[in-house]
Amino acid sequence: MSETCVLVLDAEPLPRLDRLAGRARVVHADEKTLADQLPEADVLLVWDFLSDAVREAWPGDGPRPRWVHTPSAGVDRLLPELADGRDTVITNARGVFDRPIAEYVLGLVLAMAKDFRGTWELQRQRRWRHRETFRVGGSRATVVGSGPIGREIGRALLALGVKVDLVGRTARDTDPEFGQVHATAALPGLLGEADWVVCVAPLTQESTGMFNAGMFARMKPEAHFVNVGRGAHVVEEDLVDALLEHRIKGAALDVFAEEPLPADSKLWDVPGLLISPHMSGDTVGWRDDLAEQFLDNFDRWEAGEPLLNVVDKHLGYVPTSPAAPPN
Amino acid sequence: MSETCVLVLDAEPLPRLDRLAGRARVVHADEKTLADQLPEADVLLVWDFLSDAVREAWPGDGPRPRWVHTPSAGVDRLLPELADGRDTVITNARGVFDRPIAEYVLGLVLAMAKDFRGTWELQRQRRWRHRETFRVGGSRATVVGSGPIGREIGRALLALGVKVDLVGRTARDTDPEFGQVHATAALPGLLGEADWVVCVAPLTQESTGMFNAGMFARMKPEAHFVNVGRGAHVVEEDLVDALLEHRIKGAALDVFAEEPLPADSKLWDVPGLLISPHMSGDTVGWRDDLAEQFLDNFDRWEAGEPLLNVVDKHLGYVPTSPAAPPN
Repeated sequence: MSETCVLVLDAEPLPRLDRLAGRARVVHADEKTLADQLPEADVLLVWDFLSDAVREAWPGDGPRPRWVHTPSAGVDRLLPELADGRDTVITNARGVFDRPIAEYVLGLVLAMAKDFRGTWELQRQRRWRHRETFRVGGSRATVVGSGPIGREIGRALLALGVKVDLVGRTARDTDPEFGQVHATAALPGLLGEADWVVCVAPLTQESTGMFNAGMFARMKPEAHFVNVGRGAHVVEEDLVDALLEHRIKGAALDVFAEEPLPADSKLWDVPGLLISPHMSGDTVGWRDDLAEQFLDNFDRWEAGEPLLNVVDKHLGYVPTSPAAPPN
Repeated sequence: MSETCVLVLDAEPLPRLDRLAGRARVVHADEKTLADQLPEADVLLVWDFLSDAVREAWPGDGPRPRWVHTPSAGVDRLLPELADGRDTVITNARGVFDRPIAEYVLGLVLAMAKDFRGTWELQRQRRWRHRETFRVGGSRATVVGSGPIGREIGRALLALGVKVDLVGRTARDTDPEFGQVHATAALPGLLGEADWVVCVAPLTQESTGMFNAGMFARMKPEAHFVNVGRGAHVVEEDLVDALLEHRIKGAALDVFAEEPLPADSKLWDVPGLLISPHMSGDTVGWRDDLAEQFLDNFDRWEAGEPLLNVVDKHLGYVPTSPAAPPN
């Protein structure tokens, strides 16, 4: 049997690669060389997971890797091109980002409730101006996305005494932690009750552009919106209008239609809009955790065991439980 | 029996006063008239709880109110002058600020871990700069102050997966939520382990200036300090040095030796120092809650029942349980 060829689309250096020594031939690709190298690879590690190069270079019916791993939660940069490769398995970084993103969202919610940004702007001006802030306990949040990250965000909010409505593709009448999971169709009805609306859904055809003028119009004037999903979930122009016209009170975006956000984007200084550079899940050590996760799965691959975190290529994410309905 | 005279030292208007109609004669004082009016009052409501006027105007052995209520958690602005009035009961706002301050501290901890201030400063400059942030779960906090606010802060941190060491005047070997409560003498030993040190102690003679150069020297270079107690707990000069010399990573102060913090204070622009204007507990509706709490206690006063939240004038706070040791 010939040695496994692991092709790595690089961005940052990949830690812990020594674990593959003697077990695989590791070949490094960049966006330009990827198309030529793909046919020879058994395994593709999309270490540069913010790149769209894989989709563009995918050989379709030609020789191609049997396993593609992306160290991200979302797989939208691989689909739909890779969905047709029946014998190509896609795995993702399910689990690694759950707690970090939940902490980040909880921090944003508290920061908006307590107006930390306003306070630090006043500090810069050496101004002492006492204001009343908002209590988070007793408020209500709608979390759109019922996968592991959405659930962890929900848990963090529940622990602070927030009433949480979880919205997912598959409604459930009973849920041990959240009482129930609402269907996406219920979202418009929930928005009018929410103080906090958090988007952490997978990006699929159905969810693209779902936060548009109509949705913002249903939210309360005192509500805040947080997006840690994908930029394309939001019609940015509509969000800007909603903020400028005070139809909602504030928003925090960690993801954008175009990343990095161009320096001349109008988003940077919309009042009430907090911007962070796609970093909600990236805590110290994250690259090590991501490398470990891939290497653990490589052990399974080598042993002929089923891989963990296999993406349903038609759903566009890893189904939460084996009981999830087939596509 | 003559009508009860309730003297109110005003700052902001007092809501819900109609509840006293027909039950008491309400007289309003300001800092100048207070000394003349005190001898006639049965009850003093220190609505302007940031004022030091009561201590200055206190008539000592002369005729004086039998009940003084301060709508604040700390009573340091009344002591020690009022401690000798054996027949004067002091009550405070125990309970009202627990959840709001816990939320505020949790928000500060998350904001510092995720460097929100740095992110929003970059936003102001229209700069996209991804950084790695810190995970709060798994970190360790020392909370100095084991009263209701300290415990609520501890609970909020525990819920995020933080290991919490609670420090109080009275050590306890067993505590249902925190395992144990450490004695103040144990604090220096705990500081070297803490990622977060939170001061929420009552201000007493012993706790004045407790956070000094020696204490900051024991903290880790990556640790953060938060003060929501009283400004006088901290030797501000020593904190500034600790920050400027990178002996600790950051700090957030909500309280100061002098309030409002003067515009020319050097504190405003110390790197790594977050300043807020004594507002951690003040959520929308707080003045209503404080007025209600006083009025509920007035019902008890009128009925001859024991008052709630009676301060031990020698300890300087309301003991947590009747089992607390006598002074």
